[in-house]
Amino acid sequence: MTNSDGKIITRAALKWRRGVTASVDEAIAAEEPLEIRLGGRRFTLTMRTPGNDEELARGFMLAEGFVAAQSEIAEIRRVRGRKGEPEANAIDIILNIPADGLRERLKRNFTMSSSCGVCGKTTIESIARRIEKIHARARIDAATLLAIGSKLRESQEVFAATGGLHACGIFDLNGKLMALREDIGRHNAVDKAVGWAMTRSLLPLSKSMMMVSGRVSFEIVQKAAAAGAPILAAVSAPSSLAVALADELGITLIGFLRDSSFNAYAHPERVTS
Amino acid sequence: MTNSDGKIITRAALKWRRGVTASVDEAIAAEEPLEIRLGGRRFTLTMRTPGNDEELARGFMLAEGFVAAQSEIAEIRRVRGRKGEPEANAIDIILNIPADGLRERLKRNFTMSSSCGVCGKTTIESIARRIEKIHARARIDAATLLAIGSKLRESQEVFAATGGLHACGIFDLNGKLMALREDIGRHNAVDKAVGWAMTRSLLPLSKSMMMVSGRVSFEIVQKAAAAGAPILAAVSAPSSLAVALADELGITLIGFLRDSSFNAYAHPERVTS
Repeated sequence: MTNSDGKIITRAALKWRRGVTASVDEAIAAEEPLEIRLGGRRFTLTMRTPGNDEELARGFMLAEGFVAAQSEIAEIRRVRGRKGEPEANAIDIILNIPADGLRERLKRNFTMSSSCGVCGKTTIESIARRIEKIHARARIDAATLLAIGSKLRESQEVFAATGGLHACGIFDLNGKLMALREDIGRHNAVDKAVGWAMTRSLLPLSKSMMMVSGRVSFEIVQKAAAAGAPILAAVSAPSSLAVALADELGITLIGFLRDSSFNAYAHPERVTS
Repeated sequence: MTNSDGKIITRAALKWRRGVTASVDEAIAAEEPLEIRLGGRRFTLTMRTPGNDEELARGFMLAEGFVAAQSEIAEIRRVRGRKGEPEANAIDIILNIPADGLRERLKRNFTMSSSCGVCGKTTIESIARRIEKIHARARIDAATLLAIGSKLRESQEVFAATGGLHACGIFDLNGKLMALREDIGRHNAVDKAVGWAMTRSLLPLSKSMMMVSGRVSFEIVQKAAAAGAPILAAVSAPSSLAVALADELGITLIGFLRDSSFNAYAHPERVTS
């Protein structure tokens, strides 16, 4: 059984508690594959929570550097099945850029400089070559930041039901929630939120901040940077490379944002008291 | 500053608590890229916690269906830099299988049948075609299962310090911890644990169980199945497709294994009281 928007499925499970078993109906997060095509050709396949697929595709294309702006995407359409019906799990992106320009980007993004071997430093350099450093003078006060932490959790509808989803919220600097996206994959939640901003022509997010429900890896910082967000906060811990990339790209990186405290790992100057 | 095995880095952060700020040294989980080559040619790049790279590569190759057994890997060696020094973040896998056999597997694994469109069912079918259903008559009693839940948490060394890592443990059916691996990526932690079992010729894991620290997605079930583990448990929630794949492949799937309770989502018959 699936709920109206397909994000939750109810399934019988056997619950074991202190030696007593009972059959219960459990709400679980839906996971389905999404095939993303580029001009009709298979491009990538990702496992995701159904819904907001177009946003997911837009955010993914931006973060990975395949498109530089909203205007480079001419159209995103559902792939049609044999009988002309729209496929639930396949979409096609039509770009506005010339074929050789795309080939160049694909090549560049799948190649990493290895002049001095593979390491965190070369990885960061390859990102820094294509994503601009963030100079936004955005400021947020500590009390607003703490309030945002509580707000993200309160707003996580599907998580509350299933315990199974990551969330990404975009907030303005007064702490107002602008959009929240949830997904089984942490990267997808961020891609959807960024895709939402793109469809509303809100990029770069220089007067907003992004918050994620879990940990912050290198790739999450990369996505925030591609969207131009000057502040990125997380409920949990950052990785070493996440901190190093935030340092390099000028992003304020906040971790362990909970109740009455947080840590600032990079560019704390944007947090005021 | 890095600790002796490179898994933790100490970094200055600004801690904010109830209006008071202090500069503190925070332990954070190390994240570095690992380039995996196949016979000298670039194959894939993954972000991971340094350490146990050879296990990671073995587990990855097995789960993705690029190798079917330990014997198909002739050797795994560190790539050498310009001056002959071993690279910290690049390894090369030399296979024992003919080039056309490998090409066939690569082709098969990157193609998904879409005769009836892309959906969870076709995704599961494509996995079920190459991974055998598990018929192991393994049994575990509920008390042992609960004890394993506590043991995984206690054993998570790096998590305790950084709050930043996923873990995967392999336990025997009496609850004894055989191996624990931690990584910034949940998939990597599982790949490392499976790679550990492979190097000790313990595959298939028909008399063991696997436990992961977080949620269970489709891919985690796929990895457990490739390793032949009849029981897979998790601290947190499974996804819909994880449950469906466990059902199909004969895996006992346990979720929310905490303190005094757990849920069995698929094949509960292996749990005894």
